[in-house]
Amino acid sequence: MKEISGGVCAPQGFKASGVHCGIRKNKDKKDLALIVSDTRASAAGVYTTNLVKGAPIIVTQNNISDGYAQAIICNSGNANTCNSDGIEIAENMCKLVEEHTGINANDVIVASTGVIGQPLDITPIKNGMDELVKSLGDKSADANDAIMTTDTVRKEIAVEFEICGKTCKIGGIAKGSGMIHPDMATMLVFLTTDVAISPIMLRKALLSDVVKSFNMLSVDGDTSTNDMLMVIANGKAGNTRIEKEGDDYTKFCSALAYITSNLCRKIAKDGEGATKLIECRVTRAVNDKEAKRIAKSVITSSLLKAAMFGADANWGRVLCAIGYSGAQVDVNKIDVSFKSRAGSVAVCKNGAGIEFSEDIAKQILLEDEIVIQIDCNDGKGDATAWGCDLTYDYVKINGDYRT
Amino acid sequence: MKEISGGVCAPQGFKASGVHCGIRKNKDKKDLALIVSDTRASAAGVYTTNLVKGAPIIVTQNNISDGYAQAIICNSGNANTCNSDGIEIAENMCKLVEEHTGINANDVIVASTGVIGQPLDITPIKNGMDELVKSLGDKSADANDAIMTTDTVRKEIAVEFEICGKTCKIGGIAKGSGMIHPDMATMLVFLTTDVAISPIMLRKALLSDVVKSFNMLSVDGDTSTNDMLMVIANGKAGNTRIEKEGDDYTKFCSALAYITSNLCRKIAKDGEGATKLIECRVTRAVNDKEAKRIAKSVITSSLLKAAMFGADANWGRVLCAIGYSGAQVDVNKIDVSFKSRAGSVAVCKNGAGIEFSEDIAKQILLEDEIVIQIDCNDGKGDATAWGCDLTYDYVKINGDYRT
Repeated sequence: MKEISGGVCAPQGFKASGVHCGIRKNKDKKDLALIVSDTRASAAGVYTTNLVKGAPIIVTQNNISDGYAQAIICNSGNANTCNSDGIEIAENMCKLVEEHTGINANDVIVASTGVIGQPLDITPIKNGMDELVKSLGDKSADANDAIMTTDTVRKEIAVEFEICGKTCKIGGIAKGSGMIHPDMATMLVFLTTDVAISPIMLRKALLSDVVKSFNMLSVDGDTSTNDMLMVIANGKAGNTRIEKEGDDYTKFCSALAYITSNLCRKIAKDGEGATKLIECRVTRAVNDKEAKRIAKSVITSSLLKAAMFGADANWGRVLCAIGYSGAQVDVNKIDVSFKSRAGSVAVCKNGAGIEFSEDIAKQILLEDEIVIQIDCNDGKGDATAWGCDLTYDYVKINGDYRT
Repeated sequence: MKEISGGVCAPQGFKASGVHCGIRKNKDKKDLALIVSDTRASAAGVYTTNLVKGAPIIVTQNNISDGYAQAIICNSGNANTCNSDGIEIAENMCKLVEEHTGINANDVIVASTGVIGQPLDITPIKNGMDELVKSLGDKSADANDAIMTTDTVRKEIAVEFEICGKTCKIGGIAKGSGMIHPDMATMLVFLTTDVAISPIMLRKALLSDVVKSFNMLSVDGDTSTNDMLMVIANGKAGNTRIEKEGDDYTKFCSALAYITSNLCRKIAKDGEGATKLIECRVTRAVNDKEAKRIAKSVITSSLLKAAMFGADANWGRVLCAIGYSGAQVDVNKIDVSFKSRAGSVAVCKNGAGIEFSEDIAKQILLEDEIVIQIDCNDGKGDATAWGCDLTYDYVKINGDYRT
């Protein structure tokens, strides 16, 4: 398996584009993205668990209920959520794709991100469709730009691997948490692959992957109304279609995991106001479930996140977050260390502090990718979770009056 | 029932004091508090649910296991937690009280707040005991000062009420979240009363009160290792001892609720870095439990807290937090309004936005006590939760390198 360029256009038979259509005032910011497959493709999705769901999610769930899709349309600048005409607007976005590409409206995945509770005017989208479709090509980056909100960097990745001698690819783009017109932390991830795989197995792979990837990612603990992770697989790689578990399926899952964990890290690192990625690795917990609880509790602790911003080796906050995680854990067996490119420092052994150099610890924590290593010494469970630090800018981005 | 002055010394038969003994470097900051009852008193406590528990909690639980106590000693500046000799130190603090007052060490409640994982040297406490005991008197404020960490204001309250013609009093002091040597959000609350009540009924009253008071309070979602809420009742009011439920018990519970909700508001308003109190009132939810879930989810949302800091009437974040609260709720029935001294503004009706004046909303949200009113229109459940806004200063207080 190797990383390649091209994002969602890396797999065979996919094109993408992104344009500014006018949902946003700023003409330099693209706000409408399209991804299309040459042929109808297996499709699967995972959506926000928030009871308040964006209208696009309802429409998308319905459209891919048969397991297939061929295009993804997504706007930024407005979430089309909590509006009385939301469903109608989302359906009309799919119809516009049909009118301009010939792809059946029922095979379109639709997504929106931005402020909620403000009606989404379809006019700019309608006016932008010509250019959007005309510019379809090897333009994963343009599509990525068009779905970004307060993201500061693109989040794009692709890998190449083999299944039975056939070269296969998976590509992905993502937007992380934040928006220019600040409203909520929203995550959108669109994955494409040319692997031939049945809708059932694609869904299975996605659901088992997300447990260890996007469900282990937190920027601020808020679950948005519009979170959506979609994958479409058009089969152009020519491998024997994956219809059941086995070596081919396992290879696909490994490549998928590479893509999703990479995007998780990218989203966490570019969290609103974040200056650093925090990765919490828990080992030897009683079981995987308890390990997950611990890892998630640590990366979501506001106190710990603020300490990481300050490069403060405040291991007491790690223990504190473990203690209230609800996990079954013997706190007297816990070892904690901090790691980064700059080195590694053990700070807690058997649940109590040990002597360490504050200077070395600070050097380690001043890096922009920090690992908090927690060894529970109590079993075989492990888990990794990703988060970011809590900074002045997080408050600034989310606190400033809407302007 | 009326509010009176005097704090924990308002009830008959209680004295308090607070001194600087030297746990803290800053000589202007008191760091050791003592509260004593003239006689042995019924005692009850509620403690942190964090698996990592401070040594003082273990010792206190043991000391009041018989239902009685006569004194409370508390230091700030060091939490005496995650130290191998913590229990011994906490027990020695109780012994020092015995040596200097004659009160049995087993009748002493001991508490500590401050940084964790650093051994607590008993020497300054030992040296400070003479002055601490000598200065015992009507000094609730001194005791309050001595337990404060990053608190910016004292949190003191007392009420007077009647049970069967006898004048009864309850007083309380609290410290909220924060510490000078920043480590964790820690809450300590000490209540005194001269009501005559059995240990069993006192415990019952406290446990049922806390469900609607301190369990509905959140500053940053982190549960400390040292949280402690203690009440001691010495019976000096001369009422017929409350041994069972009935009018007298109900009157006591009402007075207790007045005290605890007042202290909750004070702690929330003085949360680390907070500029305003946020009170979330949920009405007509399916039941009380669901109402609580909703109220707590709203006041703990980082996004909503940041919006309140910015005086942004971003009701979408309220709906978002309701949506992921896990509560059983019909989002299409929800009405939301914001209230304060400056007025009231409805922002959401039946789960969708309604037109409102952003100017008026901003005026309302610029006040320092905000009510978020959520009407679920779906039952008879209600709940109130208290929190604060998320500010630059929260990050500053918790992010600055330990100095």
